[in-house]
Formats: sequence, structure tokens, C-alpha cells
Amino acid sequence: GRKVLIVYAHQEPKSLNGSLKRVAVEELSKQGCSVTVSDLYAMQFEPRATRNDIVGCLHNPEEFNYGVETWEAYKRGDLSNDLIEEQKKVQEADLMIFQFPLYWFSMPAIMKGWMDRVLVQGFAHDFPNCYDSGLLKNKLALFSFTTGGSREMYAKGGISGDIRYLLWPIQHGIMHFCGVKVLAPHICFAPEYVSEEKRKEMLIAWAQRLKTLWKEEPINCSPEWYFK
Amino acid sequence: GRKVLIVYAHQEPKSLNGSLKRVAVEELSKQGCSVTVSDLYAMQFEPRATRNDIVGCLHNPEEFNYGVETWEAYKRGDLSNDLIEEQKKVQEADLMIFQFPLYWFSMPAIMKGWMDRVLVQGFAHDFPNCYDSGLLKNKLALFSFTTGGSREMYAKGGISGDIRYLLWPIQHGIMHFCGVKVLAPHICFAPEYVSEEKRKEMLIAWAQRLKTLWKEEPINCSPEWYFK
Repeated sequence: GRKVLIVYAHQEPKSLNGSLKRVAVEELSKQGCSVTVSDLYAMQFEPRATRNDIVGCLHNPEEFNYGVETWEAYKRGDLSNDLIEEQKKVQEADLMIFQFPLYWFSMPAIMKGWMDRVLVQGFAHDFPNCYDSGLLKNKLALFSFTTGGSREMYAKGGISGDIRYLLWPIQHGIMHFCGVKVLAPHICFAPEYVSEEKRKEMLIAWAQRLKTLWKEEPINCSPEWYFK
Repeated sequence: GRKVLIVYAHQEPKSLNGSLKRVAVEELSKQGCSVTVSDLYAMQFEPRATRNDIVGCLHNPEEFNYGVETWEAYKRGDLSNDLIEEQKKVQEADLMIFQFPLYWFSMPAIMKGWMDRVLVQGFAHDFPNCYDSGLLKNKLALFSFTTGGSREMYAKGGISGDIRYLLWPIQHGIMHFCGVKVLAPHICFAPEYVSEEKRKEMLIAWAQRLKTLWKEEPINCSPEWYFK
């Protein structure tokens, strides 16, 4: 069975994001996948990149450099326990699903902190092992999120621009950089402004997509996909 | 005298980011500006958007909705003290400078949390008061940051794509959405891979730019600037 890690960032289990997460757990479990959830708010996940992420002495205590120190600590096995736990989950996963409400054209800070702290040099990338040769190659990622703005606002020529524009830093800058292949995003536009029935349809559509997810081809994660 | 808020996110005062921040404080103070710094790591600024941001009772305790609850709390004057403090600084500022190292094609989570939590509906925007009629109009913002990747990697056609691609969510999606006009970014490429002398030149160039900053015209914050 395949292994899936769902990194989930919503404060309210009754939210649409909460329901989308539950639907994914149910549908993927039904398929025989083993599913792990990192429920970031429930875990009170720490988003700040600080000296606390390194156990014991620093490589250079005179001038703290987060990137260098976490890289060195990774090699020594001296990252903090919460990071080691998350890295284990990533290492085992065939697919990572990121489920969140869009905050300011990006992920909520608690999830950005997961990216900043978990995807350490040496673990997820190690120059020149980046992009197609990133250390997490052979894994898949999928960004599933809800928006405040409508589909029209996020259309090409809409006031907020093509939704793909804002996926560039997330899909290309983070996942592709680590060698992860990216499946098409799953976007629920403006669920707060539609009927309860429409929201139910959104959940059904997600369950439906998950049924054939493993047959999907990754997107071509290059500027053409985003800005063509 | 003009008022400047510097929102600063680096753990190490001796870093180039720390020096860039100090140069800005010195140069702008010399000009007669009054400068305030929010040193996010030193403040241990909270990046997580949670129920703790609302003092007292919730508008809808049955189903927690962060956007709605902070909007309501703002109107009642019931946001947490750290948010009220930051909003006062924003309200008074003519210019906001964001100083940070680029983390994963974006700002560090601690700064993203500042955006998520401080720029509350009712305070920074209030539909239809967004974009050119956002509530923070008549203010300026400038993103000043360092990168790990080189200028060549962030060129159009480079492996990491035009650096402007990743500025879209930050400059347009956040600042323009709130009505803030955006000055050209200030970017120090790959300071960790250049000589001490080159890094000193970077500091001098920043001080130099600040001398005539108030004569600069904002960028045209539309898709053409980013994706032309």
C-alpha cells in the first residue's frame, strides 16, 4: 500500500478544510493507503526558525546562520525532535497533500514554518541536488486549498491574477526544488460564499478525484505552466 | 518628519540582514525620519493565527472562522495586545520596509505570520475596499531581502525563474491588496557566496538608495511588471 502524508492547517475541524482532510483520509484509507496526518494547529507546530531547532552546541556560535546550523545538525542527528518526526513522515511518504485555506496568496504561516523548518539542506536538497535531482525525488505533492476570492477574481485578467501565478513559489520554489513532482492543485473557490449544497459538491468532487489520483501525471513544473 | 516602520526578521544581529536594518535606521534617522523597528525574532512574535488573537467571547463559538472572528474583534477593539501594537505602528507609518532573508521563494514564516495576523479585515482592507482602494492607501512598502541563489539563477530563463515571479504574491497579493504602493524591491543576491568587501558594497548601495528614496515613484503593480 502507498503511503500518504497530509499536512493540514486549519483551526476548526468543522471547516470545509477539515472536511476535505477527512474525505482524503477516508478515501485513501479505503484504497489501502496508509495515511498520516500532521494537524499543525492541533500539534501547536512551531513555525519560527530559531536556535532551538538545534540540539546541543552550534557549529558557529559567533554568528548564527539558520541554514548552515540546521544542515550541520541534520548530519549529526542533532535536529530537534519535532523536526526529526516530520522528516520521518516525509521520508516514508509517496505522496504529500497540503490542505489549507489560502492566506494572503500563500499558505498560512504555520504551514510556511513547516516548509522552512522541515525541508532542511542535507535532507530535502543539497546543492547541486536540487530541482530534478532534489533529494525528495520519486515523491509526489498536491496542494489542496480554499480561497476567499472567487474563480473570476483569480482568472487570467482578473483583479487577483491567474491563480497559477501564486502557485509558482509554492510548487516550483519549494516542492520542485526538492525534486518532488507536483500534481495539479485542487482548489475550492470561495466556499464561504456558496450554498451548503455547493460545499457538499466540493467534497464529493475531491473524493471523486482521489479515486483515480494514482493514475494522474504530474504537471510540467516550468514557467510555461504558470505564466504561458 | 516622515515615519518609517521596519519589520525585520533575522535571528542574528551580525548577519547582513542585521546590518541592512541598522543602515536603514541610521540613514533614515539622519534624514529626520522617525523610525520604528519590529524585530520579530527578538519579540518572539507569534506567527500562528489562532483563537488567542481574540480577547473575550467569540462571534461564533460553534465554528471558529479566523477571518470573521478577527474582523469582528477589530471592530469591538478586542484583538490581542500584540496585534493592536503592530496595527498602531502600521497606522502611523508612511513607509514600511520589510527586511528578511528569502526562505523558500518567500518571507520567513515569522514574517508571514505578521502579515496573516496584523493585516486584519476592517483595518487593512474591507471589501470592496481592496487593491487601489485598500484601507492602507497613501502608504508605501519596500521589500528588502537577501537570497541564497545567485542573480543568474533568478534571471528570466534561469533555473529559479525571474525573481519578479515570486514577488507577485508578496507585493501584489498582500501590499497592493491593502492599497499600499510598492517601491522597487531591494535585493542582495547570494551574500554568503561573495567577499567581505562585496558585502560592504551592498551596505553602501543600500544607504545610497535610501538617500533619494522619497523621490522614487512606486512600481506599476500589475501583471506586466511581474510577467511581461
